[in-house]
Amino acid sequence: MELKGIQEIRMTENYIGIDFGGTNIKIGCFSADMKLLLKTSIPTDAQMGPDAVIDRMVGNIKDTTGKKGISFETIKAVGIGTPGPAKYSQGILIRCANLPKFTNVPITKMLKDKLGKPVVLDNDANAACYGEFVAGTGKNIKDMVFFTLGTGIGSGIISDGKLLHGSDDNAAELGHTIVQVNGRLCSCGQRGCGEAYASASNTAKRAAEAIEAGAESSLKAVLKENGQLTSKDVYEHLSKGDELAKKITDETAEVLAVLCINALHCTEPEKIVFAGGMIAAGKPLLDRIKYYFKQHIWKIKQEDNVEICFATLGEDAGIIGAAALAAKL
Amino acid sequence: MELKGIQEIRMTENYIGIDFGGTNIKIGCFSADMKLLLKTSIPTDAQMGPDAVIDRMVGNIKDTTGKKGISFETIKAVGIGTPGPAKYSQGILIRCANLPKFTNVPITKMLKDKLGKPVVLDNDANAACYGEFVAGTGKNIKDMVFFTLGTGIGSGIISDGKLLHGSDDNAAELGHTIVQVNGRLCSCGQRGCGEAYASASNTAKRAAEAIEAGAESSLKAVLKENGQLTSKDVYEHLSKGDELAKKITDETAEVLAVLCINALHCTEPEKIVFAGGMIAAGKPLLDRIKYYFKQHIWKIKQEDNVEICFATLGEDAGIIGAAALAAKL
Repeated sequence: MELKGIQEIRMTENYIGIDFGGTNIKIGCFSADMKLLLKTSIPTDAQMGPDAVIDRMVGNIKDTTGKKGISFETIKAVGIGTPGPAKYSQGILIRCANLPKFTNVPITKMLKDKLGKPVVLDNDANAACYGEFVAGTGKNIKDMVFFTLGTGIGSGIISDGKLLHGSDDNAAELGHTIVQVNGRLCSCGQRGCGEAYASASNTAKRAAEAIEAGAESSLKAVLKENGQLTSKDVYEHLSKGDELAKKITDETAEVLAVLCINALHCTEPEKIVFAGGMIAAGKPLLDRIKYYFKQHIWKIKQEDNVEICFATLGEDAGIIGAAALAAKL
Repeated sequence: MELKGIQEIRMTENYIGIDFGGTNIKIGCFSADMKLLLKTSIPTDAQMGPDAVIDRMVGNIKDTTGKKGISFETIKAVGIGTPGPAKYSQGILIRCANLPKFTNVPITKMLKDKLGKPVVLDNDANAACYGEFVAGTGKNIKDMVFFTLGTGIGSGIISDGKLLHGSDDNAAELGHTIVQVNGRLCSCGQRGCGEAYASASNTAKRAAEAIEAGAESSLKAVLKENGQLTSKDVYEHLSKGDELAKKITDETAEVLAVLCINALHCTEPEKIVFAGGMIAAGKPLLDRIKYYFKQHIWKIKQEDNVEICFATLGEDAGIIGAAALAAKL
């Protein structure tokens, strides 16, 4: 039976999806219908430089597929998602905040040369968005907007069934759309970006700032002990009824709701999907986003039946999406 | 010579473009390469109701093409742009603010039945956007965002060479994206929309409100005499050096610049094109939009070389775009 299973896998067409992060490189191998055949993760060790990192990645792909009985010949293409900014359509990483030695790296060509397979590069948020679109909550729809709430707010846009890339590969930076002219300073240099308020780290920062400015909160002790707060702290204390945690969550939800309204008035998705670490906050956060969406949305059209929901694939969205993009090559 | 000209026109394929407004219906007949063959305009007289208005429109098309020697057989299709909200892909006007008797009107079917030609319906701002894209400042590019500054702010998005329609035909309502959470009330019921600050009529209103609140300005006498201000008044007094007109223009330009930044971070156009009555303000307005764009745009990517410019087709953009959409049927 086991042998038969291996033979079946050998006969199909398979695809590799890579989620290339500053800390870890996640690798998945998928069948043509996006069933996960194997999943692995290695430390990025970016300080070793592009050549060594890519060599280790290629070695890992060959090793793990071999051990799983997946013939290297069945791998038809490879997809890779990375942080930006990059010239994605040209396959070149320009520079990445968490990958200091990766400046002007032709990663697509390097991988292609070392693997002998077609390779496609896309933004990591786009890859995760595409994963949710083909295999997660976005199945069976054609228009979707995706936000991933982490240190920053990444995003992706599916318009009429396709990822929207823009004129220079850097469309769908919705975390850096401005919701407050001359508002809070964002790490990108702009003021008033959605990200400056509502990313996981800025949610935590706003709570810390409020406490430092004198607000009473059960989070005060946590801040004193750890020297900083996380969004997880905020949501834990929200569930315990802390008033400041409630106020901070509401402000985050209000900004996320405005990002939803702006997305609706821009590309008009059927679904707006939130992913990333902060969705661990669960229903209390999602309910407040929906509440503020209804509060702020226009009243001239009643049929704004966009669905706001959480992603369903968790951390696998990136590798699934990258593999699905490879399957389209 | 004249006879030869007429024969040539008879032999080609031609398209009708209609810009259906609350006051006037503009009609143009175009050759396949979008050369204008004839242009006419009739009062809408919306109070006569859909049947009578459409009959007059059809009569006018037949009359004017006939008189110009354009054989009715050469007309291959008809495009029509109307205000929303509408079910554009189904060809149905739901209701239009300036067309009170036009509720649930299957305008595409009615025109098709009366003309015996294929008919396509789209949003009026989309049609004007498409006109600029195929025959105006958007020629030779693939990604464009278009704003028309009038009573409201209409908009259109060209993504990868196509009009972006969204999941329910109401994408590209960028005038109603929120740039100030809980900001100025917009006629759509939302707060803080770009339109609530920077449309032509809201620019004039903000000037009037400032004067009523005690601001000194040479516009004060105009407001007293006319009981209201227009954006034209504001720009006339701007050119005369009035300080309030300068302040109001700057606020409008700043909000328009933020709409440009948000458009760039959303669909990443190569060009952002402003049209509509308010562009008569000319270089002083355009220069301030560009100034605030540079002030507010992020600094993490230097290559944001989007071009911000004015439309070039004037009032003909709507009929050209509608005809070009018909030519694609």
